[in-house]
Amino acid sequence: MSSNDTATETTTAKLLEAPSVQELVRQIRAQDSYGVYKNWSDDLVLKPFIIDRRERRKISVEGEVNPATINRIELFYRAIASRIEQETGPVVQVVIELNHEGFGWALVFCGRLLLVVRSLRDAHRFGFDSLEKLAIEAEKLTQAGIELAKRYPEVYRL
Amino acid sequence: MSSNDTATETTTAKLLEAPSVQELVRQIRAQDSYGVYKNWSDDLVLKPFIIDRRERRKISVEGEVNPATINRIELFYRAIASRIEQETGPVVQVVIELNHEGFGWALVFCGRLLLVVRSLRDAHRFGFDSLEKLAIEAEKLTQAGIELAKRYPEVYRL
Repeated sequence: MSSNDTATETTTAKLLEAPSVQELVRQIRAQDSYGVYKNWSDDLVLKPFIIDRRERRKISVEGEVNPATINRIELFYRAIASRIEQETGPVVQVVIELNHEGFGWALVFCGRLLLVVRSLRDAHRFGFDSLEKLAIEAEKLTQAGIELAKRYPEVYRL
Repeated sequence: MSSNDTATETTTAKLLEAPSVQELVRQIRAQDSYGVYKNWSDDLVLKPFIIDRRERRKISVEGEVNPATINRIELFYRAIASRIEQETGPVVQVVIELNHEGFGWALVFCGRLLLVVRSLRDAHRFGFDSLEKLAIEAEKLTQAGIELAKRYPEVYRL
């Protein structure tokens, strides 16, 4: 094994440790009623979330969004909602609205406060360039949500 | 015409004057690309929104929610959003999320503030017992939304 391979493995291991990534893995495994993922590494479980630019462009944006893709979008935002819950207390809701063209909204909220507001487009192609991009995005959204909840506790608990 | 009929007509005319009811009528007419409603009274245009208890119970909650019903749900909350916009300024968004069993959410928001949060159930049966009930509900949601926007201007403009 080259030193380069070892470096990559260390980075991957570190990214997988991010609390929001761990929560996403937990959410995915929770849906695995038949134990298919039982012996899979976290890395492998997250594989469908990683689609590089070239692969993404090959996915057609015609027709309905694939139910498996919608499920992944829900899992991603559900993981962020759970992380915010864990840090702040009250139950956090997730609403994903997608129209037939793959446009819509991802909303994470509690009380009257919106913690995450994302407009979605080309949802057919939902995915991240790399595990690093996924981890950065998930941590960023989680931290921003927690900060908002702390800044506006009254609206959060309304 | 009996005095009772006259009284009913006066009440109906008054209810139709409510700003949120007028806005709903305007939203419905805006979708009328073929001019079908052109010569219809406001009362008649609103008819599909009025379903009494007995009629409602006859509507099956099996299968997908009728697209016309989903459209009515969107129009109702869009009218409330428009009314809040007119009173407060910034653009107000509407998100309706419905699953295949007719459960979901109706959300109206601006910035990071949720002005209306309604969980939906048996959406197949969406409708109001009477024009009065519709007007009361629409005005109540509008006023509550405007009050929230004024109470938390910072979150509203975030």
